[in-house]
Amino acid sequence: MTLAVSGGDLQRLRKLNSLAVVAALRAGGPMPLTHLAERTELARATVKQAVHDLIEQGWVAEMDPSAGGKGRPARRYRFRAEAGRVLGLDIGAHNVRAALGDLDGNVVHLSRVPVTPALTRDERLQAVDRAIDACLTGAGATEDEVWGAVAGSTGYIDLEGRIVLSRAIRDWSGAPLAEHLSARLPCPVVVENDSRLAALAEHRKGAARQVDNLVYLHLGRRPGAAVILDGAPLRGSSGAAGEIGVHPLFNLAASSDLLQASVSPVTSGLAPGEVAAALFEAVRQGDPGSTTAVLRYVKVLAMATAAMTLTVDPELVVLGGGFSRSADVLKEPLRAELETMCLRTPEIRGSTLGEECVAVGAVCFAVDHLNARLFNPAH
Amino acid sequence: MTLAVSGGDLQRLRKLNSLAVVAALRAGGPMPLTHLAERTELARATVKQAVHDLIEQGWVAEMDPSAGGKGRPARRYRFRAEAGRVLGLDIGAHNVRAALGDLDGNVVHLSRVPVTPALTRDERLQAVDRAIDACLTGAGATEDEVWGAVAGSTGYIDLEGRIVLSRAIRDWSGAPLAEHLSARLPCPVVVENDSRLAALAEHRKGAARQVDNLVYLHLGRRPGAAVILDGAPLRGSSGAAGEIGVHPLFNLAASSDLLQASVSPVTSGLAPGEVAAALFEAVRQGDPGSTTAVLRYVKVLAMATAAMTLTVDPELVVLGGGFSRSADVLKEPLRAELETMCLRTPEIRGSTLGEECVAVGAVCFAVDHLNARLFNPAH
Repeated sequence: MTLAVSGGDLQRLRKLNSLAVVAALRAGGPMPLTHLAERTELARATVKQAVHDLIEQGWVAEMDPSAGGKGRPARRYRFRAEAGRVLGLDIGAHNVRAALGDLDGNVVHLSRVPVTPALTRDERLQAVDRAIDACLTGAGATEDEVWGAVAGSTGYIDLEGRIVLSRAIRDWSGAPLAEHLSARLPCPVVVENDSRLAALAEHRKGAARQVDNLVYLHLGRRPGAAVILDGAPLRGSSGAAGEIGVHPLFNLAASSDLLQASVSPVTSGLAPGEVAAALFEAVRQGDPGSTTAVLRYVKVLAMATAAMTLTVDPELVVLGGGFSRSADVLKEPLRAELETMCLRTPEIRGSTLGEECVAVGAVCFAVDHLNARLFNPAH
Repeated sequence: MTLAVSGGDLQRLRKLNSLAVVAALRAGGPMPLTHLAERTELARATVKQAVHDLIEQGWVAEMDPSAGGKGRPARRYRFRAEAGRVLGLDIGAHNVRAALGDLDGNVVHLSRVPVTPALTRDERLQAVDRAIDACLTGAGATEDEVWGAVAGSTGYIDLEGRIVLSRAIRDWSGAPLAEHLSARLPCPVVVENDSRLAALAEHRKGAARQVDNLVYLHLGRRPGAAVILDGAPLRGSSGAAGEIGVHPLFNLAASSDLLQASVSPVTSGLAPGEVAAALFEAVRQGDPGSTTAVLRYVKVLAMATAAMTLTVDPELVVLGGGFSRSADVLKEPLRAELETMCLRTPEIRGSTLGEECVAVGAVCFAVDHLNARLFNPAH
């Protein structure tokens, strides 16, 4: 060949080859050079060079040969998910959670600090600090090992991570959460809406794996929603995507309040927080009054879900939040309502991640951000 | 350097370099090698090689030196948009349009064949053929020069291009449009929802240039809607994205029918198709009865628009379709209604492309598909 190839071009090519190798190892698990060459469609010599570079940079390690069984197996290589750590936070009215994850988005330690809705802004930020401290201590890690942090919180959070409006947490609109975290963490910090992170968690680790287009509904006393398109959370042009709950025709918050306030023999004497679960249980037992109350709630829920479905046409709707424990009761009537309104009715599944989903989603999102920074071939 | 670089790697690198050069020329217009090297951040020798390759392949041409003014200007190169042709079709109840475009998505010829809603399926397909014939003849082109075709039609069209449901055109659900076109055109054929193509046209050539996230509303007797995210039309998991018009709470079709049927001194004696325009004109003149009727329509429109806005958070809402000529009357009251419902109110603009927008969008979409096939570095 008589091509003019500059040193800069070769650097770019090496970087692209390294990216291809890292992507193959992350997707396919540990493998020998021969398999890597097949999966990346690169020449064996090229793959060997890339693996050499990546081992030097700390991204790839050779597997312990004893891990294999047969005599003289080919050397296998793996992505070093432990090369860095990310921090995921979930800051709510009743709990602050901190999760430390590896570069594959797996949580290695999670701490929970109970709080109350009555806390002041500063008290809540102090609780955030305590949760981070507990999590790092529990994982035997230090702040310097954290390569990226994502904090989830309830409310309308703009693209710069400012909490524009938070109705669910007292004194929280305008709280300087990103500044507070940036002051103590030596890494980039992202603040994101909690439903969006929960949706991402379901997509990566929960009920929506392998499903790239979905609507997530956070059902409970503080309803929320989020959209995942092409495997990524939809933020919208100002961070307000998924805020269907405020639409006056649906008024999701009021509908779940109505459910909580249902007066029925089944729920008399219960604390407000216990009413919904009792109603759902009574529906399972066939109680007609409870069934009527729950169907009324489902009707409102279906109107909002249909509006989102007719806008983005998701493959799947995931029911999350406190009421997701009763997804068995909600799924079928919701499906039946959607059937009458949508051109194509999405599948409906209950969340499988429970109350840790926002923290798990924050860890996954931190990994996504890190990948974008580390592996963006344009830079 | 002592890198192991295979022949396959160099081929990949050459392809990437060519892509970078084509992208720079398409975005920046004709330019000399020096500028190309700056814009692509490639070495001058690399750019020279890429331009040489591209001229050989027919993608790039040297500009006529007389085009410059000064003595001995540097040679400039341009992308050859005329290297291929694409065909865009708009198949409606009252008109069939065929537009021939170049590889930059500019329409070089457009033909229109008037039809009636009463046509049978076969008669409409024959009208499509006549429109294509007239367009090719008018442009002095043959079918063999068409590299890709996109046909827009009203209705729910699935990802395989099947017309699942079309209420606006008689005998059209299930029509074998893609098969019909594929049988006579020697290129890939895509069938797509017409509102989605109109939205794309506004994004590329009309009211929404430079705006990557928008909601498009087709306002008129057959309302429709579409969403553009990150500069691409959102199809959804089954092709049903944007079908908010069927939501029972909004019932957009009924609301515009109501407007058409308004009984007012202003509209007495008018044909149904003339009522809306007369009402809008009367609003401009300050007629109170007409204003009440139009505001009632805007309220319903706003409810549907708010549901889409709260789901995807667009930067802009474009008003298209027949009523877009009265965007001046609709914009302000629609904005005021949205303001009360949305966390962030998008800007509102009227369409600038008028009745040819679906055909123009089809041409743009055909170019997008062609780019994806021609310039996908993975293949």
